[in-house]
Amino acid sequence: MKYHEITQADCANLSRFISEADRFITNPTQHWDHDQFKTITAMPDLVIQPVNNEEVINVVKYANDNNIPIVARGNSTGLMGANLTVKGGISLDMVKMNRVLEYDPKGLTMTVQAGIRLKDIEEYLADKPFTYMPAPAMHWATLGGNVSTNAGGLKAIKYGVTREHIRELKVVLTNGQLYKFGSKAVKSSSGYSLKDLIIGAEGTLGVITEITMRLYPKPRKSINAIIPYPTLSDAIKSVPAILASGVVPTTVEFMGRKVIELWEEYSNEQFPISNGDGFLIIGLDSFTDEEWQAQLKQTLTVVKDFKAEDAIILAADSKEAQKIWQCREQLLLAIQKSTPKMDEIDICVPINHIPDVLKRIAELESELKIRIPNFGHAGDGNLHIYLCSDNLTDNEYKKISAKVISELYKTAKSYDGNMSGEHGIGFARANNYEEFYGKEYTDLLRQIKNLFDPKNILNPAKIFNL
Amino acid sequence: MKYHEITQADCANLSRFISEADRFITNPTQHWDHDQFKTITAMPDLVIQPVNNEEVINVVKYANDNNIPIVARGNSTGLMGANLTVKGGISLDMVKMNRVLEYDPKGLTMTVQAGIRLKDIEEYLADKPFTYMPAPAMHWATLGGNVSTNAGGLKAIKYGVTREHIRELKVVLTNGQLYKFGSKAVKSSSGYSLKDLIIGAEGTLGVITEITMRLYPKPRKSINAIIPYPTLSDAIKSVPAILASGVVPTTVEFMGRKVIELWEEYSNEQFPISNGDGFLIIGLDSFTDEEWQAQLKQTLTVVKDFKAEDAIILAADSKEAQKIWQCREQLLLAIQKSTPKMDEIDICVPINHIPDVLKRIAELESELKIRIPNFGHAGDGNLHIYLCSDNLTDNEYKKISAKVISELYKTAKSYDGNMSGEHGIGFARANNYEEFYGKEYTDLLRQIKNLFDPKNILNPAKIFNL
Repeated sequence: MKYHEITQADCANLSRFISEADRFITNPTQHWDHDQFKTITAMPDLVIQPVNNEEVINVVKYANDNNIPIVARGNSTGLMGANLTVKGGISLDMVKMNRVLEYDPKGLTMTVQAGIRLKDIEEYLADKPFTYMPAPAMHWATLGGNVSTNAGGLKAIKYGVTREHIRELKVVLTNGQLYKFGSKAVKSSSGYSLKDLIIGAEGTLGVITEITMRLYPKPRKSINAIIPYPTLSDAIKSVPAILASGVVPTTVEFMGRKVIELWEEYSNEQFPISNGDGFLIIGLDSFTDEEWQAQLKQTLTVVKDFKAEDAIILAADSKEAQKIWQCREQLLLAIQKSTPKMDEIDICVPINHIPDVLKRIAELESELKIRIPNFGHAGDGNLHIYLCSDNLTDNEYKKISAKVISELYKTAKSYDGNMSGEHGIGFARANNYEEFYGKEYTDLLRQIKNLFDPKNILNPAKIFNL
Repeated sequence: MKYHEITQADCANLSRFISEADRFITNPTQHWDHDQFKTITAMPDLVIQPVNNEEVINVVKYANDNNIPIVARGNSTGLMGANLTVKGGISLDMVKMNRVLEYDPKGLTMTVQAGIRLKDIEEYLADKPFTYMPAPAMHWATLGGNVSTNAGGLKAIKYGVTREHIRELKVVLTNGQLYKFGSKAVKSSSGYSLKDLIIGAEGTLGVITEITMRLYPKPRKSINAIIPYPTLSDAIKSVPAILASGVVPTTVEFMGRKVIELWEEYSNEQFPISNGDGFLIIGLDSFTDEEWQAQLKQTLTVVKDFKAEDAIILAADSKEAQKIWQCREQLLLAIQKSTPKMDEIDICVPINHIPDVLKRIAELESELKIRIPNFGHAGDGNLHIYLCSDNLTDNEYKKISAKVISELYKTAKSYDGNMSGEHGIGFARANNYEEFYGKEYTDLLRQIKNLFDPKNILNPAKIFNL
């Protein structure tokens, strides 16, 4: 389908919906042409920064009536180009829709505009007894972006992913109507869960404007154990045994010495453990000290069978623990700095098959002569796997990385895993979708897309390339 | 749309798909014409009891090709007539698809056929370190039925509802194809979650044949506290304060003396506490004794401000605790025995608005002269509200109960609640759906229904009366 190109008349019409001129940007800068990875670029024809539902409604309706592509974006921490106007059109920049609309501690919910950042939510709740539990590593991501990719984060193993913490969404559909999906109540058995259809849809079905999230009581105690192992494989193989022993950790992250060295170089800091080649960072939280102590004791007993060496135990709010998490959260940036170009996949497999994925990565590294550093969530099977261009020519890198991605998708599929655990498919992987999930399944998604967005104006060319 | 009536030729064709004659029932008995409530009856023209995917595929495809309604059913513990062939046609009785297909403790999943009962799953896992966490009160319900209503149960406050424990579904769509929705991996950000669309769809979008559920480590310690209060209102008002204090109970159920007396009459047993008119049953589980003890201490401190009297504390596997749960689980049956006819609604509201619902119930009882016993999940705002016919004539009861239901839906809607927390809409409430959720929203659901089932053969006339 051919889209309509934005004219001066369109700008005149659209600008009437937006009350302040500085939120209507007809000459966008590079700020709006990329995401965290900068590997894909696409300059929008027009950037609009709405501040309320009314403005979103009017702009979406105009775009639909006039066949203009429109792409909602948050703070561009995405890696897959999901926020880019690859077919031109309007970039609907949500970052100024960032207000807390309601804090309801008795109903255990909080309602915000979709453009609020995770760090703003953290700050808002800092002096309150509740927290928003999901913990994606990038604190400056917007909640709307998190909902759109069903972001997972570090605490999924105990507390679930974003999906489990969202009670209600306000969503503008292409017909220009504002819908309420879900409710403030905890349970629903009241027809199809459209809320769950919107979560993870990467902005292809509607524009999320307001989000009601679940408030969770802050755990009283929270500790981290950093456990070194002779090899990364030993570390990862111990995880199913830990979980089978009755321990329910908040977090189980894995990382190897190689990526830690990249971080040390990046940050000019030193990782606090010099022994071991593979590490688990385990988080435990509880109401009492006895509870985490007993779970920790159990954990340390189990991991002995996997050659674990002496662990370091840190209060989660200690300086040392902060440094460990800073390391974990900066690994992506550290790897990014180590190579001219980088790409990523974040397949998710059942936790007992992480070693199979790591084995395949090692084979591909050696076969195809490419560096593939990785780390990830050992507790939920979600790996972050980076493909570094290093000294490869552009052509070589393009060819080899496409091969690696395709091979690792085959591996994930063979263990009944997913293409992406938390980063989404976006534009970067849309061409791989049908091969992974099959034409029949993908066509079902396309039909749903067509039902919500018959003109394909909402974030076109994403997920399954429609 | 006019459906095709099953002929002898259809029977001859369909019977070829089913390998054993006793699973192809051309003269169904009353066993298949009702659900738990028996208020709506509808006799199927034909009952088929498949044992594998292949049989389901062939039967669904034939029904679709020949325009014959088909309704999957589990063990008929539903209350809203969702399992009934109200437009005639085939009752697809899933109870013989009841095998465990895979127990995968290292991947933390278990895969079963959809007709397995909760109690079978409990028995299968009895000697294993894992459990399936959701706890609907009716243990003889099938898991397929639970998935189809997104059953909630007693532990939703800590562990979530059925939705959160389902990793993967195998579903036969009307095109006669078997689809895999979801995966065995924990996280997904890989396109629209069709799994979540099927969960809670009451069998109107496809027939679920296989289910992969999450295995959860069994908690080591588990206790119940039964807390009496002078009034039910005192009991319920204490719940937000308990939750704000950092305690995360497994369960918070409420019941009043009136329903307990009905149970005492029903069961010929005595409730173990003679003081108090309102009660909370609180469940706590943990890894150590210290953890539940500290949370219990905190709870008992908080509830003092709400006039709580001395609590009874019981190990969850003690005889006394079993009796309390038996009481809780039999309340429905006890109420049912106390009246010639009965109907139910199970609205769900934010927990701080339960008192508003109870106030409205009391007003309606007095205004409309009808007995409306109730109990429910104080921790998640889901109430079970029963309308007893008692001495009312059929006509009076019909009129008054319709009025009560409509009024209580208004109440639920006014607090941004849901029509049903866990029992579904089924046939009984389908005429109320559009009024509650609005025409625009309901039409969206109808479009999705039409996409999955263009001939409307799958469980027609349910949820929104299409």
